[in-house]
Amino acid sequence: MLGGSAVHFSLAASFFTDVRVVGPVGEDFTATELAVLEDRGVITEDIERVSGEQTFFWKGHYEYDLNTAHTDETQLNVFGDFDPKLSEASSAADVLFLANIQPDLQRRVRAQCGGAGFTALDSMNLWIETARDSLWQAISEVDCVLINDAEIRQLTDQPNLARAARAVMEAGPKAVIAKQGEYGAALFTPAGFFALPGFPLEDVRDPTGAGDSFAGGFLGYLDGEDGPIDELALRRAMGFGTVLASFNVEEFGTERVARLTRDEIDSRMEALRSMTDFGSART
Amino acid sequence: MLGGSAVHFSLAASFFTDVRVVGPVGEDFTATELAVLEDRGVITEDIERVSGEQTFFWKGHYEYDLNTAHTDETQLNVFGDFDPKLSEASSAADVLFLANIQPDLQRRVRAQCGGAGFTALDSMNLWIETARDSLWQAISEVDCVLINDAEIRQLTDQPNLARAARAVMEAGPKAVIAKQGEYGAALFTPAGFFALPGFPLEDVRDPTGAGDSFAGGFLGYLDGEDGPIDELALRRAMGFGTVLASFNVEEFGTERVARLTRDEIDSRMEALRSMTDFGSART
Repeated sequence: MLGGSAVHFSLAASFFTDVRVVGPVGEDFTATELAVLEDRGVITEDIERVSGEQTFFWKGHYEYDLNTAHTDETQLNVFGDFDPKLSEASSAADVLFLANIQPDLQRRVRAQCGGAGFTALDSMNLWIETARDSLWQAISEVDCVLINDAEIRQLTDQPNLARAARAVMEAGPKAVIAKQGEYGAALFTPAGFFALPGFPLEDVRDPTGAGDSFAGGFLGYLDGEDGPIDELALRRAMGFGTVLASFNVEEFGTERVARLTRDEIDSRMEALRSMTDFGSART
Repeated sequence: MLGGSAVHFSLAASFFTDVRVVGPVGEDFTATELAVLEDRGVITEDIERVSGEQTFFWKGHYEYDLNTAHTDETQLNVFGDFDPKLSEASSAADVLFLANIQPDLQRRVRAQCGGAGFTALDSMNLWIETARDSLWQAISEVDCVLINDAEIRQLTDQPNLARAARAVMEAGPKAVIAKQGEYGAALFTPAGFFALPGFPLEDVRDPTGAGDSFAGGFLGYLDGEDGPIDELALRRAMGFGTVLASFNVEEFGTERVARLTRDEIDSRMEALRSMTDFGSART
């Protein structure tokens, strides 16, 4: 079914700002798939259709508690020799998310968005193992890294998460987000630490895309807000990321987020706030 | 070295209230070990010394990220045929913690504290596997269960944590705390959900006893406070539990908590509060 980092990210971010998605698809990506994005107002003019090829494909399964994913099959397909060429409008983006893909490809997109005010990337164990130097180079060129907590340990050879996050910041980024599945996400910045639990749900159907929906809520909010991207904005953005991820996992693929409303988002954001509130100071 | 649920719990709780520890020790438990407790004001008159026997002993190791413990050796020793007989003063306790041990033993202590206003227990996979019915019976007799999140899933045969917590509450308890190691802890009550991250530390030496230190901070605070044990009190107690656990893991055994001060606790509690604050409502 329809999925993929760019799709989950774009849908989540579309509730907060204008989203331009860049990437290649194959002939199997039909008007039906395109409509899911366009119905949410996502601008798809930088989606490159490659004839005679198939779209990137991933198949996996989860352990019984849905916390750990195992990859059964990955087909790069159209990503095998994709050479990104951004439209003028996409190049002018102020906030840029480099979804999880080969880090040299991420760098080529980054280079075409020279004026971006806030840039972030995601990655995974595959690239840590096969393109480590490129990945560190890509990391040094962005403001924020979002990555699973086990992978941040793997990337830095550092079992302690706080030290691992610091090692990433020493390479350039001023914010590191450790994604922790159902446990939520932690934000490390030079100024401090912030963490949110995953939003508790009794019905979790499909965790696929949760991390990208998180990134979409997080960066979408930052782009949509007028104010500066300071510590408080980053924390609020973490909240919206958490909320979008929670809706994503309630149903399969893009089903839930495709029919989500901003009111539902704001209502769950308030619920999340009350779930993390322990009153004013009293000891 | 000195450790064990009762020891870690008592030391942590001693910062908030008077603590009476009940349990057996062997001849290897000398004046040196006793002094660690008594120096923190813990009342040790219900510690039963069994001649010719050895104290309970546990040996384990941790995986590289210190999140997962593996038991290498457990010797019940004095716990093999311990029959708890509480002093009058201990029987009159208002708050009771049944540390992790065979659930029928927990029940015998519980029965001797009939007037307790708030009771809690911890347990583990060993008792889920070998004394499941007794454990459920013990759970039905307390107000609060503190247990690792993987074990709450195992206990209830329910992979979803929110559902697992609800299943435990249906047996009687009005609060369930899922301990999540470095990810912190989550509180489920009929009224809602609350979660705190683990306090971020760059130097974690020994996670042994963190859960018991959490329980000590949690229940010690509840006993020490004058107000009712309501939702807000439980949340604050979660904060103090988190703080005590964080000090516990900074050094081996009881080293750090034994020389801890209330000022250090309050200062870290404030830091934890600021790490979970994402400002007033604004969307």
